[in-house]
Amino acid sequence: MDSFTHMNEQGRARMVDVSDKKTTRRTAVACARIRMKPETLEKIREGNVRKGDVLAVAQVAGIMAAKKTSDLIPMCHPIPLKSADIRFREEGKDTLVVEAEAKTDNVTGVEMEALTAASMAALTVYDMVKSLDRGMVIGETFLLSKTGGKSGTYRREEGTSCGGSEF
Amino acid sequence: MDSFTHMNEQGRARMVDVSDKKTTRRTAVACARIRMKPETLEKIREGNVRKGDVLAVAQVAGIMAAKKTSDLIPMCHPIPLKSADIRFREEGKDTLVVEAEAKTDNVTGVEMEALTAASMAALTVYDMVKSLDRGMVIGETFLLSKTGGKSGTYRREEGTSCGGSEF
Amino acid sequence: MDSFTHMNEQGRARMVDVSDKKTTRRTAVACARIRMKPETLEKIREGNVRKGDVLAVAQVAGIMAAKKTSDLIPMCHPIPLKSADIRFREEGKDTLVVEAEAKTDNVTGVEMEALTAASMAALTVYDMVKSLDRGMVIGETFLLSKTGGKSGTYRREEGTSCGGSEF
Amino acid sequence: MDSFTHMNEQGRARMVDVSDKKTTRRTAVACARIRMKPETLEKIREGNVRKGDVLAVAQVAGIMAAKKTSDLIPMCHPIPLKSADIRFREEGKDTLVVEAEAKTDNVTGVEMEALTAASMAALTVYDMVKSLDRGMVIGETFLLSKTGGKSGTYRREEGTSCGGSEF
Amino acid sequence: MDSFTHMNEQGRARMVDVSDKKTTRRTAVACARIRMKPETLEKIREGNVRKGDVLAVAQVAGIMAAKKTSDLIPMCHPIPLKSADIRFREEGKDTLVVEAEAKTDNVTGVEMEALTAASMAALTVYDMVKSLDRGMVIGETFLLSKTGGKSGTYRREEGTSCGGSEF
Amino acid sequence: MDSFTHMNEQGRARMVDVSDKKTTRRTAVACARIRMKPETLEKIREGNVRKGDVLAVAQVAGIMAAKKTSDLIPMCHPIPLKSADIRFREEGKDTLVVEAEAKTDNVTGVEMEALTAASMAALTVYDMVKSLDRGMVIGETFLLSKTGGKSGTYRREEGTSCGGSEF
Repeated sequence: MDSFTHMNEQGRARMVDVSDKKTTRRTAVACARIRMKPETLEKIREGNVRKGDVLAVAQVAGIMAAKKTSDLIPMCHPIPLKSADIRFREEGKDTLVVEAEAKTDNVTGVEMEALTAASMAALTVYDMVKSLDRGMVIGETFLLSKTGGKSGTYRREEGTSCGGSEF
Repeated sequence: MDSFTHMNEQGRARMVDVSDKKTTRRTAVACARIRMKPETLEKIREGNVRKGDVLAVAQVAGIMAAKKTSDLIPMCHPIPLKSADIRFREEGKDTLVVEAEAKTDNVTGVEMEALTAASMAALTVYDMVKSLDRGMVIGETFLLSKTGGKSGTYRREEGTSCGGSEF
Repeated sequence: MDSFTHMNEQGRARMVDVSDKKTTRRTAVACARIRMKPETLEKIREGNVRKGDVLAVAQVAGIMAAKKTSDLIPMCHPIPLKSADIRFREEGKDTLVVEAEAKTDNVTGVEMEALTAASMAALTVYDMVKSLDRGMVIGETFLLSKTGGKSGTYRREEGTSCGGSEF
Repeated sequence: MDSFTHMNEQGRARMVDVSDKKTTRRTAVACARIRMKPETLEKIREGNVRKGDVLAVAQVAGIMAAKKTSDLIPMCHPIPLKSADIRFREEGKDTLVVEAEAKTDNVTGVEMEALTAASMAALTVYDMVKSLDRGMVIGETFLLSKTGGKSGTYRREEGTSCGGSEF
Repeated sequence: MDSFTHMNEQGRARMVDVSDKKTTRRTAVACARIRMKPETLEKIREGNVRKGDVLAVAQVAGIMAAKKTSDLIPMCHPIPLKSADIRFREEGKDTLVVEAEAKTDNVTGVEMEALTAASMAALTVYDMVKSLDRGMVIGETFLLSKTGGKSGTYRREEGTSCGGSEF
Repeated sequence: MDSFTHMNEQGRARMVDVSDKKTTRRTAVACARIRMKPETLEKIREGNVRKGDVLAVAQVAGIMAAKKTSDLIPMCHPIPLKSADIRFREEGKDTLVVEAEAKTDNVTGVEMEALTAASMAALTVYDMVKSLDRGMVIGETFLLSKTGGKSGTYRREEGTSCGGSEF
């Protein structure tokens, strides 16, 4: 099963040897959605115009999580992350969209960094408003695009952003 | 806005004071789904009967992430976790379901621990098979149920498991 | 030298045995100051009325650092922190004041948690505006007060806040 | 296979549920040995009478590692460690002995904390003198004794210390 | 005492300046042994053919620990690890052998990464079967070989593997 | 507000994109002061000639904190630190001076690493002698000098050391 490159010859997981891969510029964008009651989204928006809002905390959480990716995902290589950014968008009256972007120059990609940032930012939003709306659902977390590396550019059909409009 | 208890009097985020809350038994179950190509799920299943499979790594990642929750979610309180477990289920031919359970005796709940475990286990699955199927989507991550604390028992309508059948 | 309780019988550092100390409510407030050019303080203030400002990031950094205290200070005991809060004040035209408060119910105090939160919040402010003002000085970081434990209440003469006026 | 309590009903690893175990005073002592060239041990001894010696660093490393145990050993429960101490002994002309002691009041024991402290202190010694003696062997790392919990007191036949004489 | 390069001019420990060392390919292999009752080894072997076994968890623990090495060993430099792998072997009826391999391209070597991976994998095995066999001994943890760097290749006489036969 | 480069186009904090900056040799020296009762400084000095003294622990804490900088300061980039050193000085009868130096070859500087090392070493001194002198003040923590990068060399007027005389 050569496709499962993370397996060693004993059939066990290993951190794949990437020492002979070339260093290239790598980018990745990941999206996550949080569906909530419209009034919860409204409250987040209100906080949005004040200092110390929910999204400011989620932003920091996402960026710090991106830097912890290799400490969280067992077979991930440690990466000298060169850029991390998180943007918020909205879709309809009940959906907050998290768009996380990561960049580096490295032998491995930053897909997991972007996905981890998006997921943890979404979970932080959940944590901060859960007393209002325990039924929120974090849905549709995926890789929107990546560039660099041997497998080159990947882009979902969805387009060039995570969707929705700017929050 | 009393509903946003994580705000201090300057309108900034704080770690809410829980020193006067009572210690009770707390449990939480969270679910996450990963939609993939049927052949990817098939490959995971094949690995499933061998040592060192994808799910064994995801299991460990989820449990270790549960213990890191307060280091990842900025306003989360550190918790003496007393139990953490992850089970895998499947739904249709293309969906792997992660069911994460956490338990403690504490003044705050373990919802975030269960959700973090489920999310990180799902991201670990993604990481390990992404070379086969970069378009996988992590969808529908939510709290299935919780018990304990002042707000008492919460249970989604979905029922008593994360759905699907045992993997 | 009985006063250095952190020494073992070989004259080496140890994490002091606190297993026979009583659990009491513990609080601590620590202060840190950052002296900068008046125009730098002005810029921080401007950011203050927008989302995503410098102080929102410093706030999160301080609270997360409080939770990492026992991982940073070698002989510190791990503590189930029950509350952490950071407030900002100003003094004159060039000084930002950080006031950090920590609380727990434990056999050891939370002085180091409050001091670590104040220091790391101050360093985060430095990091975010250093391109404007590399000569900033973090000065006067101290314990304002503590309560609980065998040594009881301690309070500096300075009074009941870290000084200055609300930012 | 009831003896492998760390398995869930799917045959996968879990963090065992300890929520119904009683809190008792727990202690554990672990030993590790490092065999080296006699001249290496001599050099460590010389450093021993100066500030900043090899053993001071190893001591701090061991104590900090004890606090990280549940972050290193996947199925270990997080523990409010109440005491951690490391002592050094010697055996013959070529063996340094590390003796690590941990204590808490908790539902689970501190064997892993003591063993992790002893191992990491030994590895730190290795790191600091490896340029002199790459062939050093860390040998015989074991639990000397433990007290508390349902399984009660355990003591190896070796006696009451890790052996050797005080360094 | 020029041989103790980790000392600064005050006789205190420092993280040695490696900024003028050349980047070369670095590898290291370390071994650890765990002696246990034959029936304990037998039970591990039985688990070996099922999903979620003891060794799968130890494998993940070892690889994750390799990535944490510079956070555990005070004077170790942070390293962009490019490969980490762990294999299990057995010797006689009572000894499990852990073989850990690390690789990078860097100015410093990966000996400590390989040793930390082997030690933590061994401690994880101990943790998971200690209820059956508290008297297990982790013995003989050493560097088998290393390549790269100014000091070049090092190889113990033992040969090219950690000994024993494949598990 | 181009001066606040850490803001994204939504006015939120981001980890600045440094992927197009050039790698250069970077150094930074930071200073921190701790003012205490003369008898406390005297006691630290006495410990100074024994093994396991306060400053040995503070030294290790500072160096380990330097390696954790990007985990503590939210918008800091992870850095392959190549050297970290801490020296102690004294000023008058009541002031201990911490001088921390960091070095790397990287696209971003090491100012925050040096400042974090100095601050955490100072806080560790506070922790270890606070039972004697709770009123200690950590004052005047600043960047003494830096070299490398686009902004080039920076040096405070104070001179070439953190002041005082060797401890």
